[in-house]
Amino acid sequence: MPHTHIHRVHVEFGDCDPAGIGYFPNFFRWFDAASRHFFVSAGVPPWREFEKTEGIFGTPVVDAGCRFILPVTYGDDLEVHTSIGEWGNKSFTMKHELRRGGELLAEGREVRVFAKRHPDNPAKITAVPVPELVRKLCA
Amino acid sequence: MPHTHIHRVHVEFGDCDPAGIGYFPNFFRWFDAASRHFFVSAGVPPWREFEKTEGIFGTPVVDAGCRFILPVTYGDDLEVHTSIGEWGNKSFTMKHELRRGGELLAEGREVRVFAKRHPDNPAKITAVPVPELVRKLCA
Amino acid sequence: MPHTHIHRVHVEFGDCDPAGIGYFPNFFRWFDAASRHFFVSAGVPPWREFEKTEGIFGTPVVDAGCRFILPVTYGDDLEVHTSIGEWGNKSFTMKHELRRGGELLAEGREVRVFAKRHPDNPAKITAVPVPELVRKLCA
Amino acid sequence: MPHTHIHRVHVEFGDCDPAGIGYFPNFFRWFDAASRHFFVSAGVPPWREFEKTEGIFGTPVVDAGCRFILPVTYGDDLEVHTSIGEWGNKSFTMKHELRRGGELLAEGREVRVFAKRHPDNPAKITAVPVPELVRKLCA
Repeated sequence: MPHTHIHRVHVEFGDCDPAGIGYFPNFFRWFDAASRHFFVSAGVPPWREFEKTEGIFGTPVVDAGCRFILPVTYGDDLEVHTSIGEWGNKSFTMKHELRRGGELLAEGREVRVFAKRHPDNPAKITAVPVPELVRKLCA
Repeated sequence: MPHTHIHRVHVEFGDCDPAGIGYFPNFFRWFDAASRHFFVSAGVPPWREFEKTEGIFGTPVVDAGCRFILPVTYGDDLEVHTSIGEWGNKSFTMKHELRRGGELLAEGREVRVFAKRHPDNPAKITAVPVPELVRKLCA
Repeated sequence: MPHTHIHRVHVEFGDCDPAGIGYFPNFFRWFDAASRHFFVSAGVPPWREFEKTEGIFGTPVVDAGCRFILPVTYGDDLEVHTSIGEWGNKSFTMKHELRRGGELLAEGREVRVFAKRHPDNPAKITAVPVPELVRKLCA
Repeated sequence: MPHTHIHRVHVEFGDCDPAGIGYFPNFFRWFDAASRHFFVSAGVPPWREFEKTEGIFGTPVVDAGCRFILPVTYGDDLEVHTSIGEWGNKSFTMKHELRRGGELLAEGREVRVFAKRHPDNPAKITAVPVPELVRKLCA
Protein backbone atom coordinates (compact mmCIF):
# COMPACT_ATOMS: atom_id res chain seq x y z
CA MET A 1 0.00 0.00 0.00
CA PRO A 2 1.41 3.41 -0.84
CA HIS A 3 2.74 5.60 1.92
CA THR A 4 0.22 8.00 3.50
CA HIS A 5 1.00 10.70 6.00
CA ILE A 6 -1.24 12.64 8.37
CA HIS A 7 -0.15 16.18 9.14
CA ARG A 8 -1.99 17.96 11.94
CA VAL A 9 -2.90 21.64 11.69
CA HIS A 10 -4.39 23.84 14.37
CA VAL A 11 -6.12 26.83 12.79
CA GLU A 12 -4.96 30.03 14.44
CA PHE A 13 -6.70 33.40 14.72
CA GLY A 14 -4.06 34.85 12.40
CA ASP A 15 -4.84 32.22 9.76
CA CYS A 16 -8.37 33.64 9.41
CA ASP A 17 -9.64 36.59 7.43
CA PRO A 18 -12.15 39.35 8.24
CA ALA A 19 -14.97 36.90 7.41
CA GLY A 20 -13.74 34.85 10.39
CA ILE A 21 -12.80 31.85 8.27
CA GLY A 22 -9.47 30.30 7.26
CA TYR A 23 -7.90 32.45 4.54
CA PHE A 24 -7.68 30.16 1.52
CA PRO A 25 -4.00 30.75 0.56
CA ASN A 26 -3.15 29.28 3.96
CA PHE A 27 -4.61 25.95 2.84
CA PHE A 28 -1.78 25.83 0.29
CA ARG A 29 0.74 26.57 3.07
CA TRP A 30 -0.69 23.62 5.00
CA PHE A 31 -0.52 21.37 1.93
CA ASP A 32 3.06 22.42 1.25
CA ALA A 33 4.04 21.59 4.82
CA ALA A 34 2.18 18.28 4.54
CA SER A 35 4.16 17.42 1.38
CA ARG A 36 7.47 18.02 3.12
CA HIS A 37 6.39 16.00 6.16
CA PHE A 38 5.23 13.24 3.82
CA PHE A 39 8.74 12.89 2.42
CA VAL A 40 10.43 13.20 5.82
CA SER A 41 8.13 10.49 7.24
CA ALA A 42 9.01 8.25 4.28
CA GLY A 43 12.71 8.60 5.12
CA VAL A 44 13.72 11.07 2.40
CA PRO A 45 16.51 13.34 3.73
CA PRO A 46 15.77 17.05 4.29
CA TRP A 47 16.18 19.07 1.08
CA ARG A 48 19.21 20.86 2.46
CA GLU A 49 20.97 17.47 2.78
CA PHE A 50 19.68 16.31 -0.57
CA GLU A 51 21.04 19.45 -2.21
CA LYS A 52 24.55 18.64 -0.97
CA THR A 53 24.50 15.02 -2.18
CA GLU A 54 22.22 15.14 -5.23
CA GLY A 55 22.03 18.81 -6.17
CA ILE A 56 18.27 18.61 -5.74
CA PHE A 57 17.05 21.50 -3.64
CA GLY A 58 13.41 20.52 -3.37
CA THR A 59 10.21 19.85 -5.26
CA PRO A 60 8.86 23.11 -6.66
CA VAL A 61 5.19 23.16 -7.48
CA VAL A 62 4.30 23.52 -11.16
CA ASP A 63 0.55 23.26 -10.68
CA ALA A 64 -1.66 23.42 -7.62
CA GLY A 65 -5.35 23.36 -6.97
CA CYS A 66 -7.88 23.03 -4.22
CA ARG A 67 -11.59 22.46 -3.93
CA PHE A 68 -12.89 24.13 -0.78
CA ILE A 69 -15.89 22.25 0.56
CA LEU A 70 -16.43 23.56 4.08
CA PRO A 71 -14.92 26.57 5.83
CA VAL A 72 -12.65 26.30 8.86
CA THR A 73 -12.20 28.72 11.71
CA TYR A 74 -9.72 29.35 14.50
CA GLY A 75 -9.60 26.72 17.20
CA ASP A 76 -10.26 23.96 14.66
CA ASP A 77 -8.01 20.88 14.75
CA LEU A 78 -7.49 19.60 11.23
CA GLU A 79 -5.73 16.70 9.57
CA VAL A 80 -4.12 16.72 6.14
CA HIS A 81 -4.03 13.19 4.68
CA THR A 82 -1.29 13.17 2.07
CA SER A 83 -0.35 10.57 -0.52
CA ILE A 84 1.21 10.37 -3.96
CA GLY A 85 -1.49 10.48 -6.61
CA GLU A 86 0.74 9.61 -9.53
CA TRP A 87 4.40 9.34 -10.46
CA GLY A 88 5.30 10.77 -13.85
CA ASN A 89 8.70 10.74 -15.45
CA LYS A 90 9.75 14.19 -14.31
CA SER A 91 6.71 15.21 -12.29
CA PHE A 92 4.43 13.69 -9.69
CA THR A 93 1.12 14.55 -8.07
CA MET A 94 0.47 14.87 -4.36
CA LYS A 95 -3.05 14.50 -3.06
CA HIS A 96 -4.16 16.17 0.15
CA GLU A 97 -7.43 15.61 1.95
CA LEU A 98 -8.16 18.15 4.63
CA ARG A 99 -10.34 16.64 7.34
CA ARG A 100 -11.93 17.68 10.65
CA GLY A 101 -13.04 14.56 12.45
CA GLY A 102 -14.98 12.62 9.86
CA GLU A 103 -15.69 15.63 7.61
CA LEU A 104 -13.88 16.26 4.35
CA LEU A 105 -13.22 20.02 4.22
CA ALA A 106 -11.03 20.44 1.16
CA GLU A 107 -9.24 18.44 -1.49
CA GLY A 108 -5.86 19.70 -2.61
CA ARG A 109 -3.59 18.68 -5.41
CA GLU A 110 -0.02 19.68 -6.18
CA VAL A 111 1.99 18.73 -9.26
CA ARG A 112 5.65 18.92 -8.36
CA VAL A 113 9.02 18.29 -9.99
CA PHE A 114 12.36 17.43 -8.50
CA ALA A 115 14.60 20.36 -9.33
CA LYS A 116 18.17 21.54 -9.45
CA ARG A 117 18.98 25.20 -9.58
CA HIS A 118 21.22 26.99 -12.00
CA PRO A 119 24.58 27.77 -10.30
CA ASP A 120 24.54 31.44 -11.39
CA ASN A 121 20.85 32.21 -11.04
CA PRO A 122 18.88 30.73 -8.13
CA ALA A 123 15.63 31.80 -9.83
CA LYS A 124 16.38 29.52 -12.78
CA ILE A 125 15.49 25.93 -12.04
CA THR A 126 15.55 22.68 -14.02
CA ALA A 127 13.37 19.62 -13.54
CA VAL A 128 15.22 16.31 -13.23
CA PRO A 129 13.88 12.74 -13.29
CA VAL A 130 12.32 11.54 -10.05
CA PRO A 131 15.21 9.99 -8.04
CA GLU A 132 14.92 6.21 -7.80
CA LEU A 133 15.63 6.37 -4.04
CA VAL A 134 12.65 8.63 -3.43
CA ARG A 135 10.31 6.50 -5.48
CA LYS A 136 11.41 3.44 -3.55
CA LEU A 137 11.04 5.09 -0.12
CA CYS A 138 7.51 6.31 -0.92
CA ALA A 139 6.27 3.04 -2.46
CA MET B 1 -15.40 44.29 -23.89
CA PRO B 2 -15.41 42.78 -20.44
CA HIS B 3 -13.74 44.64 -17.61
CA THR B 4 -10.05 43.81 -17.03
CA HIS B 5 -7.93 45.02 -14.15
CA ILE B 6 -4.16 45.14 -13.70
CA HIS B 7 -2.94 44.75 -10.14
CA ARG B 8 0.74 45.45 -9.54
CA VAL B 9 2.79 43.32 -7.16
CA HIS B 10 6.34 43.90 -6.01
CA VAL B 11 7.87 40.65 -4.80
CA GLU B 12 9.43 41.14 -1.39
CA PHE B 13 12.24 39.19 0.30
CA GLY B 14 9.70 37.89 2.81
CA ASP B 15 7.52 36.52 -0.03
CA CYS B 16 10.33 34.13 -1.02
CA ASP B 17 11.29 30.76 0.39
CA PRO B 18 14.67 29.16 1.18
CA ALA B 19 15.03 28.32 -2.53
CA GLY B 20 15.10 32.08 -3.14
CA ILE B 21 11.90 32.05 -5.19
CA GLY B 22 8.39 33.32 -4.54
CA TYR B 23 6.62 30.93 -2.18
CA PHE B 24 3.69 29.56 -4.16
CA PRO B 25 0.87 30.13 -1.61
CA ASN B 26 1.68 33.84 -1.95
CA PHE B 27 0.57 33.70 -5.60
CA PHE B 28 -2.91 32.94 -4.26
CA ARG B 29 -2.66 35.93 -1.90
CA TRP B 30 -1.82 38.09 -4.92
CA PHE B 31 -4.71 36.64 -6.93
CA ASP B 32 -7.12 37.21 -4.04
CA ALA B 33 -6.02 40.84 -3.76
CA ALA B 34 -6.34 41.19 -7.55
CA SER B 35 -9.92 39.87 -7.36
CA ARG B 36 -10.91 42.44 -4.77
CA HIS B 37 -9.23 45.25 -6.72
CA PHE B 38 -11.01 44.04 -9.85
CA PHE B 39 -14.39 44.58 -8.19
CA VAL B 40 -13.39 47.89 -6.61
CA SER B 41 -12.15 49.16 -10.00
CA ALA B 42 -15.47 48.11 -11.56
CA GLY B 43 -17.34 50.24 -9.02
CA VAL B 44 -18.57 47.45 -6.72
CA PRO B 45 -18.73 48.78 -3.13
CA PRO B 46 -16.30 47.36 -0.54
CA TRP B 47 -17.61 44.15 1.00
CA ARG B 48 -18.07 45.79 4.37
CA GLU B 49 -20.56 48.23 2.73
CA PHE B 50 -22.16 45.48 0.67
CA GLU B 51 -22.71 43.45 3.83
CA LYS B 52 -24.73 46.29 5.37
CA THR B 53 -26.95 46.79 2.31
CA GLU B 54 -27.15 43.32 0.78
CA GLY B 55 -25.99 40.96 3.52
CA ILE B 56 -23.26 39.76 1.17
CA PHE B 57 -19.95 39.71 3.00
CA GLY B 58 -17.72 38.79 0.10
CA THR B 59 -16.95 36.16 -2.52
CA PRO B 60 -15.45 33.09 -0.84
CA VAL B 61 -13.40 30.84 -3.06
CA VAL B 62 -14.84 27.36 -3.67
CA ASP B 63 -12.09 26.22 -6.03
CA ALA B 64 -8.70 27.67 -6.92
CA GLY B 65 -5.83 26.62 -9.09
CA CYS B 66 -2.62 27.87 -10.57
CA ARG B 67 -0.18 26.74 -13.21
CA PHE B 68 3.29 27.99 -12.30
CA ILE B 69 5.33 28.55 -15.46
CA LEU B 70 8.34 30.60 -14.38
CA PRO B 71 9.62 31.39 -10.89
CA VAL B 72 9.75 34.92 -9.48
CA THR B 73 12.18 36.37 -6.99
CA TYR B 74 12.41 39.41 -4.74
CA GLY B 75 12.79 42.72 -6.52
CA ASP B 76 10.55 41.56 -9.37
CA ASP B 77 7.76 43.89 -10.50
CA LEU B 78 4.77 41.83 -11.55
CA GLU B 79 1.35 42.47 -13.00
CA VAL B 80 -1.77 40.41 -12.37
CA HIS B 81 -4.22 40.76 -15.29
CA THR B 82 -7.64 39.85 -13.93
CA SER B 83 -10.92 39.28 -15.73
CA ILE B 84 -14.11 37.27 -15.30
CA GLY B 85 -13.80 33.95 -17.10
CA GLU B 86 -17.40 32.95 -16.76
CA TRP B 87 -20.57 33.87 -14.89
CA GLY B 88 -22.56 30.96 -13.54
CA ASN B 89 -25.85 31.17 -11.73
CA LYS B 90 -24.42 31.09 -8.23
CA SER B 91 -20.71 30.97 -9.00
CA PHE B 92 -18.27 32.70 -11.31
CA THR B 93 -14.69 32.21 -12.41
CA MET B 94 -11.91 34.76 -12.17
CA LYS B 95 -8.89 34.44 -14.42
CA HIS B 96 -5.52 35.82 -13.42
CA GLU B 97 -2.48 36.10 -15.65
CA LEU B 98 0.70 36.86 -13.76
CA ARG B 99 3.13 38.72 -16.00
CA ARG B 100 6.61 40.25 -15.77
CA GLY B 101 7.09 42.53 -18.75
CA GLY B 102 6.06 40.42 -21.72
CA GLU B 103 6.50 37.07 -19.94
CA LEU B 104 3.61 34.96 -18.69
CA LEU B 105 4.71 33.57 -15.30
CA ALA B 106 1.59 31.90 -13.99
CA GLU B 107 -2.06 31.38 -14.78
CA GLY B 108 -4.49 31.41 -11.89
CA ARG B 109 -8.12 30.58 -11.63
CA GLU B 110 -10.59 31.07 -8.81
CA VAL B 111 -14.18 29.89 -8.66
CA ARG B 112 -16.08 32.09 -6.25
CA VAL B 113 -19.59 32.51 -4.96
CA PHE B 114 -21.38 35.50 -3.51
CA ALA B 115 -22.12 34.59 0.05
CA LYS B 116 -24.12 35.55 3.10
CA ARG B 117 -23.19 34.27 6.50
CA HIS B 118 -25.38 32.56 9.01
CA PRO B 119 -26.35 35.03 11.76
CA ASP B 120 -25.41 32.61 14.58
CA ASN B 121 -22.34 30.99 13.09
CA PRO B 122 -19.92 33.08 11.03
CA ALA B 123 -18.21 29.89 9.81
CA LYS B 124 -21.45 28.79 8.12
CA ILE B 125 -21.94 30.48 4.78
CA THR B 126 -24.55 30.27 2.03
CA ALA B 127 -24.09 30.99 -1.66
CA VAL B 128 -26.60 33.41 -3.20
CA PRO B 129 -27.25 34.27 -6.85
CA VAL B 130 -24.78 36.71 -8.42
CA PRO B 131 -26.22 40.19 -7.76
CA GLU B 132 -27.51 41.86 -10.94
CA LEU B 133 -25.72 45.10 -10.01
CA VAL B 134 -22.34 43.35 -9.88
CA ARG B 135 -22.86 41.60 -13.18
CA LYS B 136 -23.79 44.92 -14.80
CA LEU B 137 -20.81 46.79 -13.34
CA CYS B 138 -18.37 44.11 -14.53
CA ALA B 139 -19.81 43.72 -18.04
CA MET C 1 2.29 30.48 40.90
CA PRO C 2 1.04 32.29 37.84
CA HIS C 3 -0.30 30.32 34.90
CA THR C 4 2.28 29.37 32.23
CA HIS C 5 1.52 27.79 28.90
CA ILE C 6 3.77 25.95 26.44
CA HIS C 7 2.80 26.28 22.80
CA ARG C 8 4.64 24.00 20.35
CA VAL C 9 5.71 25.26 16.93
CA HIS C 10 7.20 23.25 14.11
CA VAL C 11 9.11 25.53 11.75
CA GLU C 12 8.02 24.91 8.17
CA PHE C 13 9.91 25.52 4.91
CA GLY C 14 7.41 28.26 4.10
CA ASP C 15 8.17 30.02 7.41
CA CYS C 16 11.75 30.59 6.26
CA ASP C 17 13.22 33.28 4.04
CA PRO C 18 15.83 33.18 1.25
CA ALA C 19 18.54 33.16 3.92
CA GLY C 20 17.14 29.77 5.00
CA ILE C 21 16.14 30.99 8.44
CA GLY C 22 12.79 31.67 10.10
CA TYR C 23 11.40 34.95 8.77
CA PHE C 24 11.18 37.21 11.81
CA PRO C 25 7.57 38.45 11.41
CA ASN C 26 6.54 34.81 11.81
CA PHE C 27 7.89 34.88 15.38
CA PHE C 28 5.15 37.41 16.13
CA ARG C 29 2.56 35.08 14.55
CA TRP C 30 3.80 32.34 16.87
CA PHE C 31 3.65 34.63 19.90
CA ASP C 32 0.14 35.74 18.96
CA ALA C 33 -1.01 32.12 18.71
CA ALA C 34 0.72 31.38 22.02
CA SER C 35 -1.17 34.24 23.66
CA ARG C 36 -4.53 32.91 22.51
CA HIS C 37 -3.63 29.37 23.61
CA PHE C 38 -2.52 30.77 26.96
CA PHE C 39 -6.01 32.16 27.59
CA VAL C 40 -7.78 29.07 26.27
CA SER C 41 -5.65 26.84 28.53
CA ALA C 42 -6.53 29.08 31.49
CA GLY C 43 -10.22 28.54 30.79
CA VAL C 44 -11.04 31.90 29.19
CA PRO C 45 -13.79 31.40 26.53
CA PRO C 46 -12.91 31.89 22.86
CA TRP C 47 -13.12 35.55 21.83
CA ARG C 48 -16.11 34.87 19.60
CA GLU C 49 -18.04 33.68 22.71
CA PHE C 50 -16.67 36.50 24.83
CA GLU C 51 -17.85 39.00 22.25
CA LYS C 52 -21.42 37.76 22.56
CA THR C 53 -21.48 37.87 26.37
CA GLU C 54 -19.10 40.73 27.21
CA GLY C 55 -18.73 42.66 23.95
CA ILE C 56 -14.98 42.03 24.14
CA PHE C 57 -13.71 40.79 20.79
CA GLY C 58 -10.13 40.09 21.76
CA THR C 59 -6.91 41.56 23.06
CA PRO C 60 -5.37 43.77 20.37
CA VAL C 61 -1.67 44.41 20.68
CA VAL C 62 -0.65 47.99 21.43
CA ASP C 63 3.07 47.30 21.63
CA ALA C 64 5.18 44.31 20.69
CA GLY C 65 8.85 43.52 20.68
CA CYS C 66 11.27 40.67 20.30
CA ARG C 67 14.94 40.08 20.89
CA PHE C 68 16.20 37.48 18.42
CA ILE C 69 19.07 35.53 19.93
CA LEU C 70 19.54 32.48 17.68
CA PRO C 71 18.10 31.74 14.25
CA VAL C 72 15.72 28.86 13.59
CA THR C 73 15.29 26.84 10.44
CA TYR C 74 12.74 24.45 8.97
CA GLY C 75 12.42 21.13 10.72
CA ASP C 76 13.04 22.74 14.11
CA ASP C 77 10.68 21.89 16.96
CA LEU C 78 10.21 24.91 19.17
CA GLU C 79 8.38 25.76 22.36
CA VAL C 80 6.89 29.12 23.28
CA HIS C 81 6.70 29.52 27.06
CA THR C 82 4.04 32.14 27.75
CA SER C 83 3.09 33.92 30.93
CA ILE C 84 1.63 37.23 32.06
CA GLY C 85 4.42 39.68 32.80
CA GLU C 86 2.26 42.32 34.40
CA TRP C 87 -1.38 43.32 34.80
CA GLY C 88 -2.10 47.02 34.37
CA ASN C 89 -5.44 48.68 34.73
CA LYS C 90 -6.38 48.61 31.08
CA SER C 91 -3.37 46.82 29.61
CA PHE C 92 -1.25 43.80 30.41
CA THR C 93 2.03 42.36 29.23
CA MET C 94 2.57 38.86 27.89
CA LYS C 95 6.04 37.36 27.99
CA HIS C 96 7.11 34.72 25.49
CA GLU C 97 10.28 32.68 25.65
CA LEU C 98 11.03 30.80 22.45
CA ARG C 99 13.06 27.69 23.21
CA ARG C 100 14.57 24.74 21.32
CA GLY C 101 15.48 22.06 23.83
CA GLY C 102 17.44 23.92 26.49
CA GLU C 103 18.34 26.89 24.27
CA LEU C 104 16.67 30.28 24.54
CA LEU C 105 16.19 31.50 20.95
CA ALA C 106 14.12 34.63 21.35
CA GLU C 107 12.34 36.71 23.96
CA GLY C 108 9.05 38.28 22.97
CA ARG C 109 6.84 40.77 24.67
CA GLU C 110 3.34 41.96 23.82
CA VAL C 111 1.39 44.71 25.53
CA ARG C 112 -2.29 44.08 24.98
CA VAL C 113 -5.62 45.59 25.94
CA PHE C 114 -9.05 44.08 26.24
CA ALA C 115 -11.12 45.80 23.60
CA LYS C 116 -14.65 46.39 22.40
CA ARG C 117 -15.31 47.60 18.91
CA HIS C 118 -17.38 50.52 17.81
CA PRO C 119 -20.75 49.27 16.50
CA ASP C 120 -20.53 51.36 13.28
CA ASN C 121 -16.84 51.07 12.54
CA PRO C 122 -15.00 47.79 13.22
CA ALA C 123 -11.67 49.57 12.75
CA LYS C 124 -12.43 51.79 15.77
CA ILE C 125 -11.69 50.01 19.02
CA THR C 126 -11.83 51.00 22.68
CA ALA C 127 -9.81 49.57 25.54
CA VAL C 128 -11.79 48.41 28.56
CA PRO C 129 -10.62 47.41 32.05
CA VAL C 130 -9.21 43.89 32.34
CA PRO C 131 -12.22 41.65 33.16
CA GLU C 132 -12.11 40.34 36.71
CA LEU C 133 -12.94 36.81 35.47
CA VAL C 134 -9.88 36.74 33.20
CA ARG C 135 -7.56 37.99 35.90
CA LYS C 136 -8.86 35.30 38.26
CA LEU C 137 -8.54 32.49 35.71
CA CYS C 138 -4.94 33.43 34.89
CA ALA C 139 -3.79 33.92 38.48
CA MET D 1 20.36 65.22 5.80
CA PRO D 2 20.17 61.48 6.24
CA HIS D 3 18.50 59.36 3.59
CA THR D 4 14.76 58.74 4.11
CA HIS D 5 12.62 56.42 2.05
CA ILE D 6 8.84 56.19 1.70
CA HIS D 7 7.48 52.72 1.02
CA ARG D 8 3.81 52.51 0.04
CA VAL D 9 1.59 49.71 1.35
CA HIS D 10 -1.97 48.94 0.34
CA VAL D 11 -3.68 46.92 3.08
CA GLU D 12 -5.34 43.85 1.57
CA PHE D 13 -8.27 41.81 2.86
CA GLY D 14 -5.86 38.94 3.49
CA ASP D 15 -3.67 41.17 5.68
CA CYS D 16 -6.54 41.56 8.15
CA ASP D 17 -7.70 39.29 10.95
CA PRO D 18 -11.16 38.22 12.15
CA ALA D 19 -11.45 41.54 13.99
CA GLY D 20 -11.32 43.21 10.56
CA ILE D 21 -8.07 45.03 11.29
CA GLY D 22 -4.52 44.63 10.00
CA TYR D 23 -2.94 41.60 11.67
CA PHE D 24 -0.01 42.98 13.65
CA PRO D 25 2.74 40.58 12.46
CA ASN D 26 2.11 41.99 8.98
CA PHE D 27 3.33 45.38 10.19
CA PHE D 28 6.74 43.74 10.65
CA ARG D 29 6.54 42.34 7.10
CA TRP D 30 5.90 45.88 5.86
CA PHE D 31 8.79 47.27 7.92
CA ASP D 32 11.11 44.55 6.63
CA ALA D 33 10.16 45.37 3.03
CA ALA D 34 10.63 49.06 3.78
CA SER D 35 14.14 48.36 5.12
CA ARG D 36 15.15 46.56 1.93
CA HIS D 37 13.66 49.32 -0.24
CA PHE D 38 15.49 51.87 1.87
CA PHE D 39 18.84 50.29 0.98
CA VAL D 40 17.93 49.77 -2.68
CA SER D 41 16.86 53.42 -2.97
CA ALA D 42 20.18 54.47 -1.41
CA GLY D 43 22.05 52.55 -4.10
CA VAL D 44 23.09 49.52 -2.07
CA PRO D 45 23.17 46.43 -4.35
CA PRO D 46 20.58 43.67 -3.81
CA TRP D 47 21.70 41.24 -1.11
CA ARG D 48 22.14 38.44 -3.64
CA GLU D 49 24.77 40.60 -5.44
CA PHE D 50 26.30 41.69 -2.17
CA GLU D 51 26.66 38.08 -1.11
CA LYS D 52 28.74 37.31 -4.20
CA THR D 53 31.09 40.28 -3.76
CA GLU D 54 31.19 40.75 0.02
CA GLY D 55 29.84 37.53 1.45
CA ILE D 56 27.14 39.54 3.19
CA PHE D 57 23.76 37.95 2.62
CA GLY D 58 21.59 40.56 4.29
CA THR D 59 20.82 42.35 7.51
CA PRO D 60 19.14 39.95 9.92
CA VAL D 61 17.07 41.54 12.66
CA VAL D 62 18.37 41.07 16.20
CA ASP D 63 15.67 43.13 17.87
CA ALA D 64 12.38 44.54 16.65
CA GLY D 65 9.53 46.44 18.18
CA CYS D 66 6.45 48.37 17.30
CA ARG D 67 4.05 50.68 19.05
CA PHE D 68 0.59 50.32 17.49
CA ILE D 69 -1.31 53.59 17.78
CA LEU D 70 -4.26 53.27 15.41
CA PRO D 71 -5.65 50.21 13.61
CA VAL D 72 -5.66 49.86 9.83
CA THR D 73 -8.10 48.00 7.64
CA TYR D 74 -8.27 46.71 4.08
CA GLY D 75 -8.44 49.37 1.41
CA ASP D 76 -6.15 51.68 3.41
CA ASP D 77 -3.23 53.28 1.60
CA LEU D 78 -0.31 53.58 3.97
CA GLU D 79 3.19 54.99 3.88
CA VAL D 80 6.20 53.67 5.77
CA HIS D 81 8.74 56.46 6.34
CA THR D 82 12.08 54.76 6.94
CA SER D 83 15.40 56.16 8.11
CA ILE D 84 18.48 55.04 10.01
CA GLY D 85 18.07 55.81 13.69
CA GLU D 86 21.64 55.06 14.67
CA TRP D 87 24.77 53.38 13.36
CA GLY D 88 26.60 51.18 15.82
CA ASN D 89 29.82 49.35 15.21
CA LYS D 90 28.25 46.03 14.23
CA SER D 91 24.57 46.92 14.45
CA PHE D 92 22.29 49.73 13.37
CA THR D 93 18.74 50.82 14.06
CA MET D 94 16.08 51.44 11.44
CA LYS D 95 13.13 53.65 12.30
CA HIS D 96 9.78 53.21 10.59
CA GLU D 97 6.82 55.56 10.85
CA LEU D 98 3.62 54.11 9.47
CA ARG D 99 1.34 56.90 8.26
CA ARG D 100 -2.07 57.25 6.62
CA GLY D 101 -2.35 60.78 5.26
CA GLY D 102 -1.31 62.98 8.18
CA GLU D 103 -1.95 60.35 10.87
CA LEU D 104 0.80 58.42 12.62
CA LEU D 105 -0.48 54.83 12.95
CA ALA D 106 2.52 52.96 14.27
CA GLU D 107 6.17 53.42 15.12
CA GLY D 108 8.50 50.54 14.33
CA ARG D 109 12.09 49.91 15.18
CA GLU D 110 14.47 47.22 13.97
CA VAL D 111 18.00 46.60 15.19
CA ARG D 112 19.91 44.83 12.44
CA VAL D 113 23.39 43.53 11.78
CA PHE D 114 25.25 42.92 8.55
CA ALA D 115 25.82 39.19 8.43
CA LYS D 116 27.77 36.47 6.71
CA ARG D 117 26.63 32.91 6.93
CA HIS D 118 28.65 29.90 7.92
CA PRO D 119 29.63 27.91 4.79
CA ASP D 120 28.48 24.57 6.26
CA ASN D 121 25.41 25.69 8.15
CA PRO D 122 23.15 28.37 6.68
CA ALA D 123 21.37 28.73 10.01
CA LYS D 124 24.61 29.86 11.66
CA ILE D 125 25.30 33.52 11.01
CA THR D 126 27.98 35.97 12.08
CA ALA D 127 27.69 39.73 12.42
CA VAL D 128 30.35 41.78 10.63
CA PRO D 129 31.18 45.49 10.87
CA VAL D 130 28.87 47.80 8.92
CA PRO D 131 30.44 48.09 5.43
CA GLU D 132 31.93 51.54 4.79
CA LEU D 133 30.22 51.65 1.35
CA VAL D 134 26.78 51.19 2.89
CA ARG D 135 27.33 53.82 5.53
CA LYS D 136 28.46 56.29 2.85
CA LEU D 137 25.52 55.56 0.53
CA CYS D 138 23.00 56.04 3.35
CA ALA D 139 24.54 59.22 4.79
